[in-house]
Amino acid sequence: MDKDIIKLAHGSGGKEMNELIKKLGFSYRGRWQNFDDDSATFEIGKKHEQLVFTTDTFTVTPIFFPGGNIGHIAFSGTVNDLLMMGAKPLGLSLGIVIEEGFPKEELQEIIGTIKAISEKTKIPIVTGDTKVMEKGKLDKIIINTSGIGIAKRLLAEKPIPGDKIIISGGIGEHAIALLSKRFNYETTLITDSKPLVEEINSVKCMIKVAKDPTRGGIAAILNDISEKHNVGILIEEEKIPMKEEVKNVSEMLGIDPYELACEGRFVCIASKENAGIVEKKLKQFNKDAGIVGEITDDNKVILQTILGKRILSMPSGRIVPRIC
Amino acid sequence: MDKDIIKLAHGSGGKEMNELIKKLGFSYRGRWQNFDDDSATFEIGKKHEQLVFTTDTFTVTPIFFPGGNIGHIAFSGTVNDLLMMGAKPLGLSLGIVIEEGFPKEELQEIIGTIKAISEKTKIPIVTGDTKVMEKGKLDKIIINTSGIGIAKRLLAEKPIPGDKIIISGGIGEHAIALLSKRFNYETTLITDSKPLVEEINSVKCMIKVAKDPTRGGIAAILNDISEKHNVGILIEEEKIPMKEEVKNVSEMLGIDPYELACEGRFVCIASKENAGIVEKKLKQFNKDAGIVGEITDDNKVILQTILGKRILSMPSGRIVPRIC
Repeated sequence: MDKDIIKLAHGSGGKEMNELIKKLGFSYRGRWQNFDDDSATFEIGKKHEQLVFTTDTFTVTPIFFPGGNIGHIAFSGTVNDLLMMGAKPLGLSLGIVIEEGFPKEELQEIIGTIKAISEKTKIPIVTGDTKVMEKGKLDKIIINTSGIGIAKRLLAEKPIPGDKIIISGGIGEHAIALLSKRFNYETTLITDSKPLVEEINSVKCMIKVAKDPTRGGIAAILNDISEKHNVGILIEEEKIPMKEEVKNVSEMLGIDPYELACEGRFVCIASKENAGIVEKKLKQFNKDAGIVGEITDDNKVILQTILGKRILSMPSGRIVPRIC
Repeated sequence: MDKDIIKLAHGSGGKEMNELIKKLGFSYRGRWQNFDDDSATFEIGKKHEQLVFTTDTFTVTPIFFPGGNIGHIAFSGTVNDLLMMGAKPLGLSLGIVIEEGFPKEELQEIIGTIKAISEKTKIPIVTGDTKVMEKGKLDKIIINTSGIGIAKRLLAEKPIPGDKIIISGGIGEHAIALLSKRFNYETTLITDSKPLVEEINSVKCMIKVAKDPTRGGIAAILNDISEKHNVGILIEEEKIPMKEEVKNVSEMLGIDPYELACEGRFVCIASKENAGIVEKKLKQFNKDAGIVGEITDDNKVILQTILGKRILSMPSGRIVPRIC
C-alpha cells in the first residue's frame, strides 16, 4: 500500500525521485538534448549556439530565513541552473501560487527581493502568472521560475582521470541557516543563496563541467557526475570547506552535511593544468574555494577521510524536505 | 485590514490581479518585449525571428473532470499561449508539486495524459522538476508549465475599425464541465481543453490578433484587446456560440457566461476581406465557429443584445476560482 502513494522522499531530489521520473519518463524529445542535466538544450542558428531551458519550483519553509527569502532562491536557483550549463541567462518566468489571506506586505517583500536581484544581475523577469488558492489549501506561497539562456559552448565535456574537482565555497550554509528557523536553534549562519554569474564567468572557459549542489547536496551531484560520465571521483574530506557551525549542527541533528543543499555554491571540474588558476579565480569571490579531489578511473564516488575511504552514496530516503 | 491580504479574487485573472501585478511590476526588461500579452518575445537571429516565452501554473480543482484532467489543461494552456502569439511551440517545461500521500496511480494518469498530447502534437516536454509537500500543506497537486516557441510573424498587428472578430467555438464548456463536479449537478458537457495547433495554423497568415479566453473568459480578453490596441469592440450576443446547457447552468449558478474560462477556444481578429475565409477554415474544426462582432472606433467593449446595448466590463471581484 505504502508503495502506491507519493512520499516526502520523492521530493528530496535523491534516488527515489530519479527512479520515479525515469519510470514516468517522456520519450518524445524532438530536437532537444541533455535531459539528464537540470537544463535541456536546443541548437539554434548556424553557429552551434544552444538555447538552454530549465525550470524549478520552490516550496521552501520557512519562506523567510536568515539572509534571504523564497524569492531570493527562486531567482538564484534557476539562474544558476542556466549558468551551470555554460549559458548566459536571457530571461526568467515567474509563476507564483499564493494562499488566500497571505499578507500583501510579505508578497511585496518577496517580489522586491526578486526585482532587486534581477536589476543587479541584469537578468529580467519577462513573463509571469499568479494564482490564489483557498485558505488551507496551500502552505503560504510557492514559486516556479523557468529560465532561458544561450550558450556558445555547453559545459558538458567528459572529464578524464586526473582532472581536478573544485568547489566554490563552504557547503551546507543555506540548509543550516534555514533549519535554524525550523528547529529553533541560534545560529550566526546565513543562507549562501546567490546568483553565480560572476563566479562562473570568471572560470567558464577553463572548466569542463559545473553543477550546483542544491537538493541532495554535493553527495547527489558528485554521484550524478560519476554516473553521467562513467567516471570515478575521489574527494578528500579534510579539504571540503565547511564552517564549524555547519559541522556541529549537522552532528546535532544527525544529518549528513554532504547531503545538505547549498543555493550559491558550485562544483566544477578542470584539467590538471587549469585547476590551479580556476581555484585562484574562485578564491577571489570566496576564500574557502578550493580543489577538493579528482576524477579517478573506477566509477565510484569515494570520500577519503582521516580514518580511511568510504563510499559517498546518492542520498536516499527522507533527506531534509522543503529546503529549496 | 482586508486590503492587506491576498484575496481569492487576486487569482481569478480579472481586474484585481492586473492591478496588483502592475503595482509589483518589474521594470528591468532587457531586450524583451510584449509583456502585456501572455507571452514575452525576444528577437533572435537575423531574420527578425522572435523567441516567445510563457508560463502558467494550474491549480484546478477537481483535478479530474469530465473530458480531462489537470495534465491536459497544463499542457494545452501553455501551448495555446504560444500559439496565440503566432509562435510554433518548441518545447515545454513541467514543474509538478505534489502533496505527500497523493496516489501514484493518479500521478501516472496525469503524466500519461501529458505524454499522449505531447506525442500527438510533437511538442516535447524537455525539462522538469518535482517537489513534494507534507500532507495537508497542498491540495493534491499543482502543475506549472512554461513554454518556448519561435515566431516568424507575431500576431500583434493593430486592428482597425471594421475588422471582424471570430470565435473558434462555443464558450464556457470547460468551466461548466468542471463546475459540474464541484457543485454536483449532472451534465453531458465535457471540457473543451485542447491544444489549438491545427486551428491556429489554418488561419495564422490571415489574422492580426489571437487570444484564448481562459481566466475571465471572453469578457477579459475582449477588454484586454480593447485596452491594448485602444479600439472599441461590438459583439452581437445572439452570434456568440454557447450550448444550451452552458446557458442554463450559468443562470442556475448566477455566473456570467462571458466570464467563464475556456481551455480550447480562441478569439481572433481579421480584416473584413479575410474574415469570411477565416470563419470557413475554423468551421472545419468546429461547426460553431463564426464571426461574432467587429472592431469599432470608440474604446468600449459593447454587447449588442436583443434588448439593447450594454457594456461588457473587465471581470472583477470573485470570478470562479481555480478553474484553470
